[in-house]
Amino acid sequence: MRAREKCGVFGIYGHPEAADLTFLGLYALQHRGQESAGIVASDGKEIKSHLGMGRVSEVFSPEKLKGLTGHLAIGHTRYSTTGGSNIKNAQPFLADYYDGLIAVGHNGNFTNTKTLRRRLENKGALFHSTTDSELVTHLISHSKTKTFPENLIEALAQIEGAYCLVFITKDKIIAARDPHGFRPLCLGKINGGYVVASETSALDIVEAEYLREVEPGEIVIISEKGLESLQPFSVRKHALCIFEYIYFARPDSRIFNHSVYLTRKRLGEKLAQESPVDGDFVMPVPDSGNYAALGFSQKTGRPFEMGFIRNHYVGRTFIQPAQRVRDLSVKIKLNPVRELISGKKVILVEDSIVRGTTSRSRVRTLRNFGAKEIHMRVSCPPHRHPCFYGIDFPTSDELLANRYNLTEMTKYLNLDSLGYLTLEGMLAAMPLPPEEFCTACFNGEYPVEPEEGLSKEVLER
Amino acid sequence: MRAREKCGVFGIYGHPEAADLTFLGLYALQHRGQESAGIVASDGKEIKSHLGMGRVSEVFSPEKLKGLTGHLAIGHTRYSTTGGSNIKNAQPFLADYYDGLIAVGHNGNFTNTKTLRRRLENKGALFHSTTDSELVTHLISHSKTKTFPENLIEALAQIEGAYCLVFITKDKIIAARDPHGFRPLCLGKINGGYVVASETSALDIVEAEYLREVEPGEIVIISEKGLESLQPFSVRKHALCIFEYIYFARPDSRIFNHSVYLTRKRLGEKLAQESPVDGDFVMPVPDSGNYAALGFSQKTGRPFEMGFIRNHYVGRTFIQPAQRVRDLSVKIKLNPVRELISGKKVILVEDSIVRGTTSRSRVRTLRNFGAKEIHMRVSCPPHRHPCFYGIDFPTSDELLANRYNLTEMTKYLNLDSLGYLTLEGMLAAMPLPPEEFCTACFNGEYPVEPEEGLSKEVLER
Amino acid sequence: MRAREKCGVFGIYGHPEAADLTFLGLYALQHRGQESAGIVASDGKEIKSHLGMGRVSEVFSPEKLKGLTGHLAIGHTRYSTTGGSNIKNAQPFLADYYDGLIAVGHNGNFTNTKTLRRRLENKGALFHSTTDSELVTHLISHSKTKTFPENLIEALAQIEGAYCLVFITKDKIIAARDPHGFRPLCLGKINGGYVVASETSALDIVEAEYLREVEPGEIVIISEKGLESLQPFSVRKHALCIFEYIYFARPDSRIFNHSVYLTRKRLGEKLAQESPVDGDFVMPVPDSGNYAALGFSQKTGRPFEMGFIRNHYVGRTFIQPAQRVRDLSVKIKLNPVRELISGKKVILVEDSIVRGTTSRSRVRTLRNFGAKEIHMRVSCPPHRHPCFYGIDFPTSDELLANRYNLTEMTKYLNLDSLGYLTLEGMLAAMPLPPEEFCTACFNGEYPVEPEEGLSKEVLER
Amino acid sequence: MRAREKCGVFGIYGHPEAADLTFLGLYALQHRGQESAGIVASDGKEIKSHLGMGRVSEVFSPEKLKGLTGHLAIGHTRYSTTGGSNIKNAQPFLADYYDGLIAVGHNGNFTNTKTLRRRLENKGALFHSTTDSELVTHLISHSKTKTFPENLIEALAQIEGAYCLVFITKDKIIAARDPHGFRPLCLGKINGGYVVASETSALDIVEAEYLREVEPGEIVIISEKGLESLQPFSVRKHALCIFEYIYFARPDSRIFNHSVYLTRKRLGEKLAQESPVDGDFVMPVPDSGNYAALGFSQKTGRPFEMGFIRNHYVGRTFIQPAQRVRDLSVKIKLNPVRELISGKKVILVEDSIVRGTTSRSRVRTLRNFGAKEIHMRVSCPPHRHPCFYGIDFPTSDELLANRYNLTEMTKYLNLDSLGYLTLEGMLAAMPLPPEEFCTACFNGEYPVEPEEGLSKEVLER
Repeated sequence: MRAREKCGVFGIYGHPEAADLTFLGLYALQHRGQESAGIVASDGKEIKSHLGMGRVSEVFSPEKLKGLTGHLAIGHTRYSTTGGSNIKNAQPFLADYYDGLIAVGHNGNFTNTKTLRRRLENKGALFHSTTDSELVTHLISHSKTKTFPENLIEALAQIEGAYCLVFITKDKIIAARDPHGFRPLCLGKINGGYVVASETSALDIVEAEYLREVEPGEIVIISEKGLESLQPFSVRKHALCIFEYIYFARPDSRIFNHSVYLTRKRLGEKLAQESPVDGDFVMPVPDSGNYAALGFSQKTGRPFEMGFIRNHYVGRTFIQPAQRVRDLSVKIKLNPVRELISGKKVILVEDSIVRGTTSRSRVRTLRNFGAKEIHMRVSCPPHRHPCFYGIDFPTSDELLANRYNLTEMTKYLNLDSLGYLTLEGMLAAMPLPPEEFCTACFNGEYPVEPEEGLSKEVLER
Repeated sequence: MRAREKCGVFGIYGHPEAADLTFLGLYALQHRGQESAGIVASDGKEIKSHLGMGRVSEVFSPEKLKGLTGHLAIGHTRYSTTGGSNIKNAQPFLADYYDGLIAVGHNGNFTNTKTLRRRLENKGALFHSTTDSELVTHLISHSKTKTFPENLIEALAQIEGAYCLVFITKDKIIAARDPHGFRPLCLGKINGGYVVASETSALDIVEAEYLREVEPGEIVIISEKGLESLQPFSVRKHALCIFEYIYFARPDSRIFNHSVYLTRKRLGEKLAQESPVDGDFVMPVPDSGNYAALGFSQKTGRPFEMGFIRNHYVGRTFIQPAQRVRDLSVKIKLNPVRELISGKKVILVEDSIVRGTTSRSRVRTLRNFGAKEIHMRVSCPPHRHPCFYGIDFPTSDELLANRYNLTEMTKYLNLDSLGYLTLEGMLAAMPLPPEEFCTACFNGEYPVEPEEGLSKEVLER
Repeated sequence: MRAREKCGVFGIYGHPEAADLTFLGLYALQHRGQESAGIVASDGKEIKSHLGMGRVSEVFSPEKLKGLTGHLAIGHTRYSTTGGSNIKNAQPFLADYYDGLIAVGHNGNFTNTKTLRRRLENKGALFHSTTDSELVTHLISHSKTKTFPENLIEALAQIEGAYCLVFITKDKIIAARDPHGFRPLCLGKINGGYVVASETSALDIVEAEYLREVEPGEIVIISEKGLESLQPFSVRKHALCIFEYIYFARPDSRIFNHSVYLTRKRLGEKLAQESPVDGDFVMPVPDSGNYAALGFSQKTGRPFEMGFIRNHYVGRTFIQPAQRVRDLSVKIKLNPVRELISGKKVILVEDSIVRGTTSRSRVRTLRNFGAKEIHMRVSCPPHRHPCFYGIDFPTSDELLANRYNLTEMTKYLNLDSLGYLTLEGMLAAMPLPPEEFCTACFNGEYPVEPEEGLSKEVLER
Repeated sequence: MRAREKCGVFGIYGHPEAADLTFLGLYALQHRGQESAGIVASDGKEIKSHLGMGRVSEVFSPEKLKGLTGHLAIGHTRYSTTGGSNIKNAQPFLADYYDGLIAVGHNGNFTNTKTLRRRLENKGALFHSTTDSELVTHLISHSKTKTFPENLIEALAQIEGAYCLVFITKDKIIAARDPHGFRPLCLGKINGGYVVASETSALDIVEAEYLREVEPGEIVIISEKGLESLQPFSVRKHALCIFEYIYFARPDSRIFNHSVYLTRKRLGEKLAQESPVDGDFVMPVPDSGNYAALGFSQKTGRPFEMGFIRNHYVGRTFIQPAQRVRDLSVKIKLNPVRELISGKKVILVEDSIVRGTTSRSRVRTLRNFGAKEIHMRVSCPPHRHPCFYGIDFPTSDELLANRYNLTEMTKYLNLDSLGYLTLEGMLAAMPLPPEEFCTACFNGEYPVEPEEGLSKEVLER
């Protein structure tokens, strides 16, 4: 299991086929969550929704989309870490607010969930899911202020942790990002309307023009009156998720205002400087290792080869039938090119190592195909700490770097050498100053302390 | 629409989990046909089968596989060109032969189908499908010789065209390849048993050891007695499908005894020599253009960049919802990296161009992302003629090279320059002598004349 | 469309296979709702649930049932009148109460829904469905008393109208019936445990022994401590739904403490006395008219014949293909026996007439099959008024008896004569005194006034 | 398990919505086979078909029906006795005849299958199913005569046993009934066109007018030229299946030219005469026992009561969850009316007893509900012999009457008395002379000897 992002969000106002474009946007954000998908649309009067388990392509049919008429819509793709895969946890979450239906999609993770929930239950609130999205709707409905924006500000003020929230009411789209700015959220323009999305690849697909980030702590309200921006909260230290640049975001996206592709290449270049090695060629573990490998190859002048071939027909669930074939699910996804590998010194570039089991299988496969030497280079430091802000890592006990030192890891993975990028090297390759980032999963420095229960729960998971 | 291979075949004898391994083998051959899949297995006494429409992963569940017990099995993946997508045409084709059940999977295309069918109908034969596979079973059942191998030889002697046939009876696997050897078929060893498969990537996945090609004109019988080889037909000129090397076969496969990956790189190198151009970097149209682009880059020293990012979540059927988004289905599959493309001279490497509509959309997308110049290089000559031996091209009228000359194509595709590899260049990059290949789709020189009706039908399709 | 009951409820405590028995109980209550079904079970510690759209047999598989372990369970079958058919409205309704999960199934209809809902929304409650079941859970969660029974009593005290509610907490089953006792609810004993169900046919199927009714206004709590009965509300006039005896309840059930079958036969006898007629034989419109027809036949001595044959293969949704065949969906369900009908004077017994369209088609069919005379007798008075207590009639405008007088109805239905049972005759056939019943749908005397909006809504539906 | 009919057939010529009417006709014949269904239609030029596993309502959607355009069509519902439930055995069976597509549906059973099959296999025929329908198409395609009718006559001349065959070619409907006339087949008229069907209830549903039987040995050809009748075979002794009157055919059908309903009533009257008994009332095992029970009641003057209530929501497959509930699948279908049964002497009328297990459960249930005495009367003689002509009985060993004598059966079923109708009584109640009928299942006198293998197979099944 790789680390997994919790979600992708999308919202659009001002296009006659808002739900259709949202559907496309979700396609472009599918890598951020494949467990459930949903779209909520409005024509200014009535809100319609469709949600389901599975990928965007499985959840929506042309008929389903046809029913989602209107010029504003939000969408969500989800991967869940807790509570099991369940249609009740699918998003956007809909609630019948005294003022009409509202729906909300969320990317991130609140760190004071239990406190908030206890507080609301004491007031009589009944919960139907375990999502942060439901929590925020209750906070809004229990607010005593008068307008929806006031209710929302009052609600957000109680929340700690990471969030990018996109709301829809019958005539408005509202987007909010937490003051630390953990997760990315961008703003685009389309035919006089607006789009918000987790990544710019979702703007590209709908041919929206990139405007800017939704800023940390900003609330953006999009309605008939155009775009209104609120900054109701005091400024806090930024804590952009550095792992979005390393692994999560799509390489064709611009996040936190800079290109992911170019950043990853710089990580590879830095890695080549910090951890040089002699080899016949550089090859990535595709697709996530491709870009650092390109940087590594270009920096060192050693040829780039695509020595693993990806099988595009392996779906989400691979039925493993034959017990006797070793490393099957690993091999069926990536098969090496025997004539390239055989008898060669291979420099293998990987974006990150989490538990190490998959890497170990890959190395074994290369050995079986006759590789003479295998040198692995990893374009970020070792992962050692849990994330409380929306990424699902294995428990700390399972993280390879918590079980072994470098020598042991090299042996465990059966490598000739293993090199990680340093924290400093990683930060130096970034397009923004070091203080802008959250690097907690590498060094344990948490910008926001999680409440007691949460931190325990994650460690034991 | 790309050109499409008609089928992939797999057979195994001598492994206790024959059907499970066949299932894996079909996964590795999925690119050769995604319309239907089937497995027929035997335990030496009883034949069991399961076939269905769709991909291998959709057709088989663990329960279905469990029922297919036995130590021999064959499998098939199919894409059909004629007669519509229909479960009746799914393969392996089963028939209740007087001597017990037989089943057969086929890759290729007979060129005298109508003659054969008329002949059999006059004898009272009833047909249930329009497949070559059914035809061959009738030829076998109407043979007056005594043993199955004799029946088979008598049947094959009547067939003209391209075939790789894999049969299963209750206790034997039989593989036959036409004397011209149009399509690939390889033989491997596994734990004292044998495997036959269209490509070696299917041997890799089941950890079988590559032995050799099934030779053109060879019949291989695998049973309790081991492997027996027959060469009953007179030798004919070889006509290996060159397009397997260019586009169809997997890059990690060895076909016709040589590496596809290395051959494709040489095509790219040759292309760089024949059609040099100034540019900031070389980028492929992934994934099929990757390897020629690597060869081109390494030959010229210009950097290799992966400027198109592939969306892995686009399934077989993409629901196109929004009429207003141009080139949608093209763009959703491959999105360019804006920061890389913008303001640059791009050398774009493609393996082949058939109708040109997709290429045109790709170029338009790159222009929209700010490319300054776009120079396309194609690693084979222009396609101008239909294939009668198992590949489905668009009709001749639709082939771009039949509609325009090079200048017109450059303009139609909106390129700054366009260069194709020459026929001579292509042949020079091959690992075998020119006279071994069929190059009919490029130069119209057909090794076997199709019967009247067939050739017309293909041209009008 | 016939009149439709809104729901059936079932609950069991003290059997190791509580969910399995609930599944059976729901089968026996399927006639009370076929739109959705659900079961919630507990093993004393954890609550598990499964709900789905469709019939009991469609919603539950052996695997689904297996997961519902524990010795207590409740179940629900539902037909909805408002808000559309929607999984969100499926029941039992689950809510995460501060004290743990609770779930509730409901049969009946609250008559002050809007008042209750407005009151709760002002307190911050968010609604996810339009069901009375959700409403009652919010009333409970907003109660300020300390124990669950106290919360429940406080909640019920605010509700007006008809209800049979069955709750499950992790270790208790609680059943409550409104003080008027509109809908039936019975109590049975099984191996030292208890069962509650809408009808005794559900006790029969699980081999529970009938004990008694859950009394109007009674709350029954079943737990480890056994059965506890509360009667917290002041006594009100009983208002048992007389239409349960006439049409809804199963003939093999005992409701309100008396046999439905025998009551229906008495209705037929009374009808024969009040509205005698000359005819060759008495035949029912099956199955609901069977029992009154038997009573009519036995009282008059005229032979009973089953002149309509029911097609058991017509599912819930009949696909009507051919526009040219008249009365098709009617005829496909019941086809007459030509040789019996032809040339005869038929006395046709129906339990009730609502809109009259189906009856009209039936009569036309009999005429086409050669009936000489057709005399229809109906075993209740004409329906003229809406029901606010859990039965879904057509709007008042659509009720046949509101559109025509008796002569006009006779003509509209193309009968030789038409006779309804009188209100007095109906009450005389009942096993309980007249003052025990609600007869509002016949005479408009409503025991509980509905709030403004509700009554309008029903009339306009 | 009850005895089961093998199939129902339907054909129509001359109606613009031929497939729609066939769909309706199959609904009316659904009781004759619920395992698969199919329709083949033609517009005079092209033949289209749709077949599937399951009931008519499951196999056909409005879209599927829409595709089946044309003015002629045939349909089939099937229950299979051998070879497993399999889409390959679904009918109508389609074959690509040298003269174009033909399709055929079959009701009956050939008794010389093995001989025919061996003969055809020796000529090179390949089989894809184990159906008689496929066999007949091979016989036709191997005929050396010139026209289709000649081919058909030559084919039928080789067949022994029972058949009603309905063929469709692109412009004709052909129906053929074997010379003994085992199974029913009727002919109707509709708007200048014609209908053939297994039973008249299928004519009723499409509003066709009954004309006559298709006579034993008759071939009827319906085309543009109208209806042509051939009688190419020599006359043989008639052998109409008497069990169609007793149990199989719908009570609203006329078969062999007479009413099923009235015949069943006469069986009940005869039974009352032959086997009188004292009791409080007569009640049937519904629905098949209803009509004999009515006859019994009317003959004796004892009241008729419907003491078993049928649950209409039990589908084809009832999931039996709870092991502890005895006789569950029996009880869930029919629940007794406790207040009626309790303390009473019950005369229970059943149409037939095959294995006796279900009857035994029913009696036990009645005892549990307090019946004082139970006297069972059966409206046909005991079943003792297998049927080779299209009905699937349990093996001879399983037949109750082969295991016990009357006293033992009475005890096994836990009855106070048991009475069967005599063979003479049964024949006397029939509307045709005794010599018209096949009564082999009662007395073992087979009108056509089955070939060796077949008779053994049935006995051992």
